[in-house]
Amino acid sequence: MASKAASRSLALVDTHTKNKALQGMAGALIEKKALIMKANLKDLKFAKSKKLSSALIDRLTLSSARVDAMARSLNEIAGLKDPIGDVIETIRRPNGLLIKKVRVPIGSILVIYESRPNVTSDCIGLCLKSGNSVILRGGREAINSNIAIFEVLNAEAKRCGIPDGAISIVRDTDRSIVWDLLKVSALIDLVIPRGGESLIREVTARSRIPVIKHYKGVCHTYVDASADLDMAGEICFNAKVQRPGVCNAMETLLVSEDIAKDFLPWMIDRFRHAGVQIRGCPKTRKIAGSVVRKAVESDWYKEYLDLILSVRVVRGVDEAITHIMKYGSYHSDAIDKFRAAKFLARVDSACVYVNASTRFTDGSEFGKGAEIGVSTDKIHARGPMGLEELTSYKYVIYGNGQVRR
Amino acid sequence: MASKAASRSLALVDTHTKNKALQGMAGALIEKKALIMKANLKDLKFAKSKKLSSALIDRLTLSSARVDAMARSLNEIAGLKDPIGDVIETIRRPNGLLIKKVRVPIGSILVIYESRPNVTSDCIGLCLKSGNSVILRGGREAINSNIAIFEVLNAEAKRCGIPDGAISIVRDTDRSIVWDLLKVSALIDLVIPRGGESLIREVTARSRIPVIKHYKGVCHTYVDASADLDMAGEICFNAKVQRPGVCNAMETLLVSEDIAKDFLPWMIDRFRHAGVQIRGCPKTRKIAGSVVRKAVESDWYKEYLDLILSVRVVRGVDEAITHIMKYGSYHSDAIDKFRAAKFLARVDSACVYVNASTRFTDGSEFGKGAEIGVSTDKIHARGPMGLEELTSYKYVIYGNGQVRR
Repeated sequence: MASKAASRSLALVDTHTKNKALQGMAGALIEKKALIMKANLKDLKFAKSKKLSSALIDRLTLSSARVDAMARSLNEIAGLKDPIGDVIETIRRPNGLLIKKVRVPIGSILVIYESRPNVTSDCIGLCLKSGNSVILRGGREAINSNIAIFEVLNAEAKRCGIPDGAISIVRDTDRSIVWDLLKVSALIDLVIPRGGESLIREVTARSRIPVIKHYKGVCHTYVDASADLDMAGEICFNAKVQRPGVCNAMETLLVSEDIAKDFLPWMIDRFRHAGVQIRGCPKTRKIAGSVVRKAVESDWYKEYLDLILSVRVVRGVDEAITHIMKYGSYHSDAIDKFRAAKFLARVDSACVYVNASTRFTDGSEFGKGAEIGVSTDKIHARGPMGLEELTSYKYVIYGNGQVRR
Repeated sequence: MASKAASRSLALVDTHTKNKALQGMAGALIEKKALIMKANLKDLKFAKSKKLSSALIDRLTLSSARVDAMARSLNEIAGLKDPIGDVIETIRRPNGLLIKKVRVPIGSILVIYESRPNVTSDCIGLCLKSGNSVILRGGREAINSNIAIFEVLNAEAKRCGIPDGAISIVRDTDRSIVWDLLKVSALIDLVIPRGGESLIREVTARSRIPVIKHYKGVCHTYVDASADLDMAGEICFNAKVQRPGVCNAMETLLVSEDIAKDFLPWMIDRFRHAGVQIRGCPKTRKIAGSVVRKAVESDWYKEYLDLILSVRVVRGVDEAITHIMKYGSYHSDAIDKFRAAKFLARVDSACVYVNASTRFTDGSEFGKGAEIGVSTDKIHARGPMGLEELTSYKYVIYGNGQVRR
């Protein structure tokens, strides 16, 4: 495959050339907008004929504003600092050796994703800037949109001096192609699957190549007895309602029994006015009454991605931690409390918050610029993955004749 | 399995307790030396009855001095800085959020290794200090020695307050047990295979858990036309002869054709006096004569781990780079030259040297203290893996009511 070979050349391309290409690609998206939207119409027509859900069709749709947003994102990536060549650490040894730990690209990255065609453009931008070749494998429902975006961006990238093969796309929508790709560890250095849990599990099971998973986010907020209840109310409302369809939205609210009677009635009322369906434990239902549906065991594991919330009254921070560690997905969890050390130490999630909304788990909110996703793994990268997380390093060692004794 | 649960508790154990345990464990090794050496005799008896090679039997043998060295190594690990809790990065956001990137243990680590029983003790020490539970799976030829070392260290660790289950060993030597373990991604966070290439390939192919590979080292030294030939001679001799049986020893010498006639005759003579067998390309044989055996294509891929050296005359740095990228294992490669920028940028190995021996690729030579191995992967850790490389991180975010707009 050309991708690996291209990654060797791309690793040596200077920052100025990469930025010029990204800006050119942003311009090309705007210039070729009509062509991209026409390809998108094909996908939408097919999706409607298959009677796909309106939520899916919404995610698939490329409006003029959405293409503009893709272009804006490429320009933003051009403006981010190039991580390649950064000296992460300098070690001077007593024998005179000078050891530099230098940031380098990973190589060739396979990204497997679903539905949203803007992911195509984001992944191309982030991989290009971090010096990695990218192989795109989007969902079959967006294949025409993805190919159109790829063609526009790849042509402009080549024109701007990016090596041939640095950006590629799998045109065949047959899933067996992916299973074959996952075996060629000599040609692909990393696989990033984004999307449904079952897809990610299958990719992980079949891959001989390292995988960084972006699983679901079953995010919790625990309101402790010591919490400022007004502040907790704002945080919980934001975490659930502001954008329920994303992985950093709250799915389960845990409340200390000491303040449950003071907090839950009005909080649940506020949620219900915003259209949130509540599924509660027996204590919650006792406090808030029949407006609350009964939560069943499987609800505690659920990533609703919708205006639905599980609510449980717990004895205190220990029971909250136990609940999160059992039912959570180690993505983002928050505590509203005056002192939070125990919670922050014991909850083994990528992001643990005190007195803030879980919705902040996001590359740009963390100051990283754009992100390729949120890793729920503990190997290599954890939490929001920006440009730096798409790099490896090498040791460059300068001597003047040192030999080992 | 108890290992994952124990890892949650071990992550919270303070540095003082871990260090006290490591020192106690070092003492216990000395105290129980006779018991350990007795168990080792069983393995040696079995190895001799199976007519295993003398090199393997040497690696298997635990002399009194080797047990002392194991104890010394545990004391050294006690003296290393504890990486857990380190704040790697602090980010202050305009909205007032304070984001700390904090070093945490990975969790539960399965180490799969062969022959040398001292690896058992080293892995226990490194994993304990970095707050990770460890599951040991040594080779069947060392099973009695490994269990004896484990029993001594585990008993002392428990006595010193290390959680039950933090250290465990697979007593069953049936390989199918390993294949089963590689599927339980919910209970093991990382697999580190060390040993033969075929074992590592099989582990990688079967694992659903992230793997950090420690493959072979086919290390090169390229002597450029601009090299100081006396210095190059010392470096090449050291890289090949000082300890040929290790992964950072040189296996292939590449020489610029411009200085081949000045360098090769006496260098090959020096190698031959040290007992090194030379396998050369046609040009090498033309220069150095019939003392050089003919190198065949497969020799360029070989990790001899022995007093054998492949030698090739190349046109210059470009051909040297092409050779290394085709036949090498991306472990450690060196150039002897006045200016080396192109070589250092283009050779995609974990460690690239200028004017120094490849033998320095080693945790303690890099100032990391002990190492669990040398990663040839580009994901998570690359090159020597010490304590820091056995960690992950989490983001701890402090707010005072921030919500997302």
